[in-house]
Amino acid sequence: MTAVVYRGARRLEIHDRPVEPPGPGQVRIAVAYTGICGTDLHIYHGDMDARVGASAVLGHEMSGRIAAVGEAVTGLSPGRPVTVMPTRACGRCAACRRGNSHVCHAMDFLGIDSPGAMQASWTVPADLVLPLPEGLPLDRAALVEPVAVAVHDVGRADVGADDHVVVVGGGPVGVLIAAVARGRGARVLLVEPDPFRRSVAEGMGIGTADPRATDIVALVDDRTDGAGADIAFEVSGSADGVSTAVGVLTTRGRLVMVAIHPRPRALDLHRFFWRELELFGARLYRRDDVAEAIRLVAAGEIPVERLISRVEPVDGVHAAFEALESGGGVMKVLVDWRESAP
Amino acid sequence: MTAVVYRGARRLEIHDRPVEPPGPGQVRIAVAYTGICGTDLHIYHGDMDARVGASAVLGHEMSGRIAAVGEAVTGLSPGRPVTVMPTRACGRCAACRRGNSHVCHAMDFLGIDSPGAMQASWTVPADLVLPLPEGLPLDRAALVEPVAVAVHDVGRADVGADDHVVVVGGGPVGVLIAAVARGRGARVLLVEPDPFRRSVAEGMGIGTADPRATDIVALVDDRTDGAGADIAFEVSGSADGVSTAVGVLTTRGRLVMVAIHPRPRALDLHRFFWRELELFGARLYRRDDVAEAIRLVAAGEIPVERLISRVEPVDGVHAAFEALESGGGVMKVLVDWRESAP
Ligand SMILES: [Zn+2]
Ligand SMILES: [Zn+2]
Repeated sequence: MTAVVYRGARRLEIHDRPVEPPGPGQVRIAVAYTGICGTDLHIYHGDMDARVGASAVLGHEMSGRIAAVGEAVTGLSPGRPVTVMPTRACGRCAACRRGNSHVCHAMDFLGIDSPGAMQASWTVPADLVLPLPEGLPLDRAALVEPVAVAVHDVGRADVGADDHVVVVGGGPVGVLIAAVARGRGARVLLVEPDPFRRSVAEGMGIGTADPRATDIVALVDDRTDGAGADIAFEVSGSADGVSTAVGVLTTRGRLVMVAIHPRPRALDLHRFFWRELELFGARLYRRDDVAEAIRLVAAGEIPVERLISRVEPVDGVHAAFEALESGGGVMKVLVDWRESAP
Repeated sequence: MTAVVYRGARRLEIHDRPVEPPGPGQVRIAVAYTGICGTDLHIYHGDMDARVGASAVLGHEMSGRIAAVGEAVTGLSPGRPVTVMPTRACGRCAACRRGNSHVCHAMDFLGIDSPGAMQASWTVPADLVLPLPEGLPLDRAALVEPVAVAVHDVGRADVGADDHVVVVGGGPVGVLIAAVARGRGARVLLVEPDPFRRSVAEGMGIGTADPRATDIVALVDDRTDGAGADIAFEVSGSADGVSTAVGVLTTRGRLVMVAIHPRPRALDLHRFFWRELELFGARLYRRDDVAEAIRLVAAGEIPVERLISRVEPVDGVHAAFEALESGGGVMKVLVDWRESAP
């Protein structure tokens, strides 16, 4: 069967590999679609070689159908549409012992630390598999994972109805956070300089502003009678994004740190003190978040199809990564495995 | 009656002023003791002249007895020992409208924005006055205000029994935070380079460590089986203090920002993201916090008398400020007004 193998920076090879029959407690999935995310792009650039090694199968956003079931697996049968929660916790570390296994310190992340979904046939532990409703198109289902990230992030801030929410950064995760928050009844503003990304968000009914053309703090002050936003999400990864997210917040406002900032950032701790602001790091998701993401996508509450910019066949996987890298005009790119089923 | 008047940087003058009879809804207090805090020292240095003006009466940590009661005041009669909550909220700003009047944007802070307790006779709104138990010595009662700060800070982090707590910075507020947290059953480590401050804390039964001699992160890791602390308080105001407070925290650990950091600090936002850390700004106190502080001090649960390094007569007010400024060997200094009662 066909697999895309990462062989070092910018080297993806299409290999033919033997199908791996499911062992006890495992299932084999015929992959339908695999999404490519920012982490995959980091790996593609060679930035994570020490972690992924030189012969990795990437991919952790996916959908598919059960192809075969191993011994001692119940509740999953061939043909069933599914997605996979790609995180396996160790169960023993300090995070796991305290009920925070979703950010386990010794996480096995499928598609990073062990083989992922960039292959036509993927054999995984059955306890990571979540069934999907039959009526849910599998291309949309491949976006359940980033929706779960957004559900987790919105939950970290406990977004409520009528809250004023500012999302700084309008990539796929930022747009999905905005959509999930709006689904909870919040009043949402998405801040994003790229006109294409803004247009995608606007197409989903999310109000946007261009930080290069608009004073965002003044705009939020104006919309909130000078009070400021209740909640801000920093999803841009930029220093300016941090400043904006802190600057818009009302007294006791909550900032959720979603983006990766590799180096320490200057933060206005005096404003945190003075306004009793709150900051919450947010990473990945719990199983409940994935279940809620499936519900939201299946119900059409989050129109994820609007984020799918391109669907490439397996032969187009290089083109898919290159399109994402160029940035302009692309949100989410999927690889279609349906013709490659072993 | 005698008042200490701030006349500009390092200029304190002892004036004789007329006694101000209490108007409707006011009481006049015969001040017993006034404490001097870090904010008073900032003012003394001339750093807050734009706010306090050139003829201010400082002082917001105090105890005394009711001397006279104005019209329409109930529940307070002459002779009653009292302290004053020195913060008056506007009731109209964005913070007040959202139930956060304790950090009102237009706060009238007695002793900063309007006359404080560095006078033998202080006339204040009755609704800011809290009665004290008769048996509570008035020198200890002058420390209710900083204890209220500590109660508020500990409440912001929701410190619970058996939590591992690290307090970075062992001035009066840091030591009081440590004491209040320990009173809740937490396991507390106070980090402070000054040996005198450490000795005061040790005398209160609080474990300490010297960050110049000990790797604090390694020490906390060792004490927590590698997990890290549940809660850290940054009370030092230093860049190193911020690094230590962030570095000791376990996954989902909570950092309370108590100290004033006038300039932005480099913060490891990646660690906040990766460990889902949380940061809470904390400032001042609510009335409930002051009531709890009175209870703790009156019950002897917080032995505040150990923080009182010096008690100066009114003539010694310069010496009191200079002693605090020198830093070494001094925690809290009180001014004794009892001989000056008008
Ligand atoms: Zn673990
Ligand atoms: Zn107010």
